[in-house]
Amino acid sequence: MKYFLFLLFISSFSAVLKAQDVDSLFIRKLADQVLVNGRAYEDLRHLTKKIGHRLAGSKGMVASELWAEATMLALGADSVWKQPCMVPYWVRGGKDAAQATFRVNGKTRTRSLDVIALGNSMGSMKPLKAEIIEVKSFEELESRSAEVKGKIVFYNYAFDPKPIGTFRSYSDAVQYRGSGPIRAAQHGAVGVIVRSMSHSTDNFPHTGSTRYVDTLPKLPALAIGLQDADWLSAQVKKEKTMVTMKTYGRFKPDTTGNNIIAELRGTEFPDEYITVGGHLDSWDVGEGAHDDGAGCVQTIEILRAFKALGYKPKRTIRFVMFANEENGLRGGNKYADEAKAKGEKHVFALESDAGGFSPRGFDITASAMQFNKILSWKPLLSAYGSHDYNPGGGGADIGPLNRALGTPMAGLRPDSQRYFDYHHARNDVFEAVNKRELLLGAINMAALIYLVDQYGL
Amino acid sequence: MKYFLFLLFISSFSAVLKAQDVDSLFIRKLADQVLVNGRAYEDLRHLTKKIGHRLAGSKGMVASELWAEATMLALGADSVWKQPCMVPYWVRGGKDAAQATFRVNGKTRTRSLDVIALGNSMGSMKPLKAEIIEVKSFEELESRSAEVKGKIVFYNYAFDPKPIGTFRSYSDAVQYRGSGPIRAAQHGAVGVIVRSMSHSTDNFPHTGSTRYVDTLPKLPALAIGLQDADWLSAQVKKEKTMVTMKTYGRFKPDTTGNNIIAELRGTEFPDEYITVGGHLDSWDVGEGAHDDGAGCVQTIEILRAFKALGYKPKRTIRFVMFANEENGLRGGNKYADEAKAKGEKHVFALESDAGGFSPRGFDITASAMQFNKILSWKPLLSAYGSHDYNPGGGGADIGPLNRALGTPMAGLRPDSQRYFDYHHARNDVFEAVNKRELLLGAINMAALIYLVDQYGL
Repeated sequence: MKYFLFLLFISSFSAVLKAQDVDSLFIRKLADQVLVNGRAYEDLRHLTKKIGHRLAGSKGMVASELWAEATMLALGADSVWKQPCMVPYWVRGGKDAAQATFRVNGKTRTRSLDVIALGNSMGSMKPLKAEIIEVKSFEELESRSAEVKGKIVFYNYAFDPKPIGTFRSYSDAVQYRGSGPIRAAQHGAVGVIVRSMSHSTDNFPHTGSTRYVDTLPKLPALAIGLQDADWLSAQVKKEKTMVTMKTYGRFKPDTTGNNIIAELRGTEFPDEYITVGGHLDSWDVGEGAHDDGAGCVQTIEILRAFKALGYKPKRTIRFVMFANEENGLRGGNKYADEAKAKGEKHVFALESDAGGFSPRGFDITASAMQFNKILSWKPLLSAYGSHDYNPGGGGADIGPLNRALGTPMAGLRPDSQRYFDYHHARNDVFEAVNKRELLLGAINMAALIYLVDQYGL
Repeated sequence: MKYFLFLLFISSFSAVLKAQDVDSLFIRKLADQVLVNGRAYEDLRHLTKKIGHRLAGSKGMVASELWAEATMLALGADSVWKQPCMVPYWVRGGKDAAQATFRVNGKTRTRSLDVIALGNSMGSMKPLKAEIIEVKSFEELESRSAEVKGKIVFYNYAFDPKPIGTFRSYSDAVQYRGSGPIRAAQHGAVGVIVRSMSHSTDNFPHTGSTRYVDTLPKLPALAIGLQDADWLSAQVKKEKTMVTMKTYGRFKPDTTGNNIIAELRGTEFPDEYITVGGHLDSWDVGEGAHDDGAGCVQTIEILRAFKALGYKPKRTIRFVMFANEENGLRGGNKYADEAKAKGEKHVFALESDAGGFSPRGFDITASAMQFNKILSWKPLLSAYGSHDYNPGGGGADIGPLNRALGTPMAGLRPDSQRYFDYHHARNDVFEAVNKRELLLGAINMAALIYLVDQYGL
């Protein structure tokens, strides 16, 4: 009996070893394929340079949907289709501008500020001139409520340099962009300027979604570059400073966008779905290279690599370019709604939406058992850059799937130091992406998808 | 007795816990100091934009030595001094150039190639025109020996995309730059063109040291940009192709360079030395920002942070800007020679010379016990980016100290994906460095120096 158990132990041990060897070799083949023959960088060049930015409703959206569909079809997916959904159609409407006016030695001086209207914000339409009141926080806004009426509130809340992961600083600061206009309107302000959500060393302003409520005036709202924010902060301390702002944002009627979905059918468990994706839309500045062109071309690269290696997945893998992440999340919601309505079994979802930088790990929302299973694969992935496995997080577009069906989800976690240099700004262009960093992200994603496909969660 | 042992166990356990807490808190303070008040980025701006490149013997070398000495003195080091050493003084001597000539449909065509003479190479001085023979390896050179005489050997050995760590591809390929001219001369070649040691997507040629022997002709030698290398490779397959190369390299008499050394004296073990540094020299193209301006300003940042926090080291810490790493290693050798001559006890040396990118760990040459001691600190460092601890490696400048005195050494290992995009090329400029990535490197180095200072190896 002891001998039998010993043999059993040895044979299971070698079975484990053999599986690990097979996996390790396959992941190395995946990596070689992507590093040697990967075309994600060339795909990104096309998406950014030939198509450009692609906000929901825009021409870029339409062109990028056609491109994504054609590209995944050409790669030999078993099927590729459009999943239509209504998307908001916000337009900037003109050239955002702001100019500071102040008096020095009895003479009026002006200075142009590098600004960009917040996404979804309503334009001033005509020049709006008012005095600036700078506040560092909502608390300061409350405490100085009496001074706010008729003024432009300048939220100068600094992006915290101390967290090592920069998304923590973003989560901390983004409330001023999201809720700043509502909070300012509550105190009678007429406009809002928000310090950009960034710790970059340049002056590019960073846009992004803001919100209104129908019970309060929908104040025109701008983001301002960091150097100009520092200048304005120093300026308002010296003398009364007026700013004239001009913005033209408005909503056109909702229009139709599409999630673009490609599928490799599972050979053993075709009714178990694994989703991997990024979002195809971007803000209407720069080229949406890191946010989220990178996630899209990495997703396509995984399909390319699987096809190149003749990999036949056990489960059905869906490669999804989501619509409208930036200012509506209608694509992600649609995907989850349809999955739920059809009673589909979604076993895992993975998104890349944190930039095309060197991968460092994954953020994972899953049960403890599922988390630990993923963690057990770390020895297979760490050689390719994935060391950090953190509970929580995933991706905006797959969040609805997680909430609707309890699907465990993960987000690629690339190095985050440079992300907020480019995020939602006009310098988020192809040139800001490094080819190998982009490809390495795809490799780590492909390896995780492969392991989930082989062993489930 | 059992109870006593239990108490002893508990008390040592809490002592360990307490020490880890103290260390963890101090490292967090170091990190906050560097992230909030660090000036490494501004120092780098000065070094690159005001001084520029700084090859041994050049005006830049002299200016950078003065700057480094003044900067570390102003930061309040206990002492700062120059350690002179004779350095080679190679000059490029003129504008390197190469032009391909070939005939298409009976007509002569020409094309300029983006090239740069290899460091330490002897110039052609006048135009050297010869036919190109392309070889992919030394083996091919040997096998085609009869064809080589009178020709320019074009080593077109590709930088391997498959290794995840790019320094492996560099180690693999660099033999063609280092030994290419000697090997070509053995077969009667008249000149050498080497494919740049890079996997970048641009066309910048990358220089770097080459070698000669006195018994063979010292062939003029160029590095060529990757796009031009691919063009040339395709071209020589189509038709006989001549290249005219012009280089002007020569050595002036050796001159005096200096290691710049700043010291914080140890309070408990002043005779035990810990060295941290980078090399102040760079190639004579670009601005030497990643190689190795980054390592220098990170070293200075550690001094700044220790002073700002009032840290009094137990051991004597030396902050060293080494001279002449690129084409002689005279600074590193001098430092080791003097340490040995004086019988100094050097307990640890750390160098940053792999670029100012996000840190990922350390390469460590040390005994197994020392290695494991450093590994035991990983929980303290991993939150700041250091996950990878690899045996072997360290830094070129501290290698002599390791060889002379057996001093354990380590090298900061930043993410390596972008390094060979810039290495020894004219795009290695300030703008290629990200502020936070640079500062994070300094934090991980500072933390390791602190731990070695506290606990020895």
